Amino acid sequence: MNAPLPNTFFDVDARRPVPPAMLEGLKARFGERCSTARAVCEQHGRDESPIDVPPPEVVVFCESNDDVAAVVQLAHAHAVPVIPYGVGSSLEGHLLAVQGGVSIDLSRMNRVLRINAEDLTVTVQAGVTRTQLNREIKDTGLFFPIDPGADASIGGMSATRASGTNAVRYGTMRENVLGLTVVTASGELIHTGTRARKSSAGYDLTRLFVGSEGTLGVMTEITLRLYPLPEAVSAAICSFPSIDAAVQTTIQVIQMGVPIARCELLDTNAVRAVNQHDRLALAESPMLLMEFHGSEAGVAEQAQTVQEIARDFGGTDFDWATTPEARTKLWTARHHAYFAAIQTRPGCRVVTSDTCVPISRLAESINDSVAEAEEAGLPYFIVGHVGDGNFHLAYLIDPAVPAERETAERLNLQMVERALRLEGTCSGEHGVGLHKMGFLVTEAGSGAVEQMRLIKRALDPRNIMNPGKIFAL
Amino acid sequence: MNAPLPNTFFDVDARRPVPPAMLEGLKARFGERCSTARAVCEQHGRDESPIDVPPPEVVVFCESNDDVAAVVQLAHAHAVPVIPYGVGSSLEGHLLAVQGGVSIDLSRMNRVLRINAEDLTVTVQAGVTRTQLNREIKDTGLFFPIDPGADASIGGMSATRASGTNAVRYGTMRENVLGLTVVTASGELIHTGTRARKSSAGYDLTRLFVGSEGTLGVMTEITLRLYPLPEAVSAAICSFPSIDAAVQTTIQVIQMGVPIARCELLDTNAVRAVNQHDRLALAESPMLLMEFHGSEAGVAEQAQTVQEIARDFGGTDFDWATTPEARTKLWTARHHAYFAAIQTRPGCRVVTSDTCVPISRLAESINDSVAEAEEAGLPYFIVGHVGDGNFHLAYLIDPAVPAERETAERLNLQMVERALRLEGTCSGEHGVGLHKMGFLVTEAGSGAVEQMRLIKRALDPRNIMNPGKIFAL
Repeated sequence: MNAPLPNTFFDVDARRPVPPAMLEGLKARFGERCSTARAVCEQHGRDESPIDVPPPEVVVFCESNDDVAAVVQLAHAHAVPVIPYGVGSSLEGHLLAVQGGVSIDLSRMNRVLRINAEDLTVTVQAGVTRTQLNREIKDTGLFFPIDPGADASIGGMSATRASGTNAVRYGTMRENVLGLTVVTASGELIHTGTRARKSSAGYDLTRLFVGSEGTLGVMTEITLRLYPLPEAVSAAICSFPSIDAAVQTTIQVIQMGVPIARCELLDTNAVRAVNQHDRLALAESPMLLMEFHGSEAGVAEQAQTVQEIARDFGGTDFDWATTPEARTKLWTARHHAYFAAIQTRPGCRVVTSDTCVPISRLAESINDSVAEAEEAGLPYFIVGHVGDGNFHLAYLIDPAVPAERETAERLNLQMVERALRLEGTCSGEHGVGLHKMGFLVTEAGSGAVEQMRLIKRALDPRNIMNPGKIFAL
Repeated sequence: MNAPLPNTFFDVDARRPVPPAMLEGLKARFGERCSTARAVCEQHGRDESPIDVPPPEVVVFCESNDDVAAVVQLAHAHAVPVIPYGVGSSLEGHLLAVQGGVSIDLSRMNRVLRINAEDLTVTVQAGVTRTQLNREIKDTGLFFPIDPGADASIGGMSATRASGTNAVRYGTMRENVLGLTVVTASGELIHTGTRARKSSAGYDLTRLFVGSEGTLGVMTEITLRLYPLPEAVSAAICSFPSIDAAVQTTIQVIQMGVPIARCELLDTNAVRAVNQHDRLALAESPMLLMEFHGSEAGVAEQAQTVQEIARDFGGTDFDWATTPEARTKLWTARHHAYFAAIQTRPGCRVVTSDTCVPISRLAESINDSVAEAEEAGLPYFIVGHVGDGNFHLAYLIDPAVPAERETAERLNLQMVERALRLEGTCSGEHGVGLHKMGFLVTEAGSGAVEQMRLIKRALDPRNIMNPGKIFAL
């Protein structure tokens, strides 16, 4: 397996400058919404990955489907790269301008277009963020469950096939995007899917674009499934004597078919960071943070089953949060875990793993990774959507010390190799971006990656859509 | 919209004969497993659609991945069509040899390869049927929920993105296929997906092949999600004064978020046919056939909620089947409905609709279709997965009377046009095949169909994989 080292992604020969004629075209149409200011370009040229690459040359702030189509048409004519930009929270270098070009900022396309509460669907522009969406549909009695750590845009979440804490019950973006409006590589608007819950009408273009990381087209509008707010919700934390005990509890909960809505692991390091950041007093040991959705009776039943399992594995301090305020406090803390942990080492960058394995292999997957992390001595923390078999072990590295980065990358590689041996995947939810291109080949095999390449070449013959990502062409 | 009339699909100029060198190659490798016998070819040249086309020239009975790869490699070399064949239960002409070629019979690839009960997954060969699968995993306490009317093969169900009665709770093949082994158009074996529940690793090839109707590759092995058998199951039938009353009940059940496992509509004609065929004494009026899965308490709660809603719409004779035997009897009758109804008009062929709409539009979608059917005077029946917004109105036509076929096709077209106006799809679960190629263009738009075409050309440049289906190249 070939583990690409960060900062070797950028090939100066691969830069494709924006020709003056194209820049003029963009300025003529977009005026001040087309920026070449250094600060603006730099802001659009980085994400939460530990990778540094020179920024895009131009940023265009789009406000409509037609705006996006106009940029792509120009880019197509001049064979210049375009990279869609939401809030910049991707973790694997997805939006870095490795070949230069134009960043298409979609953050102003932030309207909730249609709420169809009677059908449990909503259509939004790509720049709407997940918290904005849930705020705007609050009065309908419905909610959208997918919640990556950051307040990402729905477009970005679709592009990376994101999931989060609720996926164990509600699925990921793969299951929850019904249809799309897409600007293709030639700048044409197409629609995929309908508002029907299911369809057998032709190739599943929706799910081809979902997870394609901007390499096949720009998703500008997304129709999503919504869910009725459960009649009863109950959240609980439970401390365990070891990570293994927490994981064994999780495995049994899933195998028994308990319809748990959230089942999150925080290791001691993550709990400690959260305690500091959110001024909480959680017991500083491995913890499961769980949530149950259903009727009053159903939630009580689930909770009892899980408590019994947890007790068998030494789970203690089962602590319930039944009021919305208490729950919000807990889940806010969970969502802060990543940024809270980063703050424990000022100036650090983060190398994050994202493996996901079949549930029965989760203990081996996590335990061995923890042992390696402990041995290496780098600061790290673990948060995990363990109900899905997915966890993140994040190393906090000093960017000025190359040896730290190399160690973190080596350990990340070992984790991926282990996950693949256990019949899992190198990426549960973060995507491939730049960082996992080598892993993808090992996971999928060169034949399958070649099928992806054929699709890319067919749909984007000029290789302008976020080029250089997922696989080498 | 262009509604192609049956029997205009076959273009004699499009036939691509199997050259002698290829036939010799097939006979050398497969011996008696390669057949050109007329009866064998004819059996592999028709499905449950009302369309007649000359059969394939050769049938090869494959027993391994390598067998399939060998056939496809020969077909690739000679630019001859191949058509995967499971049990022949497709409804839209999917496996008709419109351009001649070789039928790849997968029915002998019928082994359940790996049961991973601890992960709720199973890997099967494509020729395993759904009832066989559930028989073989019976002792694990798990089940596979997807159940189209016929005892279809898992390969065929994957190819058409099938669903059935449980989809309202458990999803369709789209949600339940985790990974695939595929023979590509060049005869190479690739693997897509892993056994992990979710992944963001590259393009979603799994979901591109699922629903591609054999036009991109031959799926030979399929890894599926399984589900724990619910602790409690309860089935009920309820009679309604009108189809509208049954549909309104369904809409409210779904909008309230009741996690109903099955919610099936049978119209009076279907109930009558089932009574005759299965010697039952169901009240001959529109009926909902429902099932609830969960804990004892959960099932009781769901049932009570649904009973209250049904009563508001005039539902009567709520009749419970809580023993496995009583349930099996009911659901067997439901699965017989299609064939039972066909037998009410000996010698008939069937033109079946398959529209699926957002749940709030279901009443309009069904009521108007019923009015048109009543006015037309053709024998018909309705069965519907109404919880999904999907129903089938099937016309029983005399194949010797062209006017009947024309009427049925015209009414089918009207149903599709209405479904698209209501933001639904022309196909909830049967697929496009030959029959809905015109509908697909109207539904998806020429731009989206062009993206499909580009993918097809890229992955199958010689157009050998089930050519002439889904869209014209």
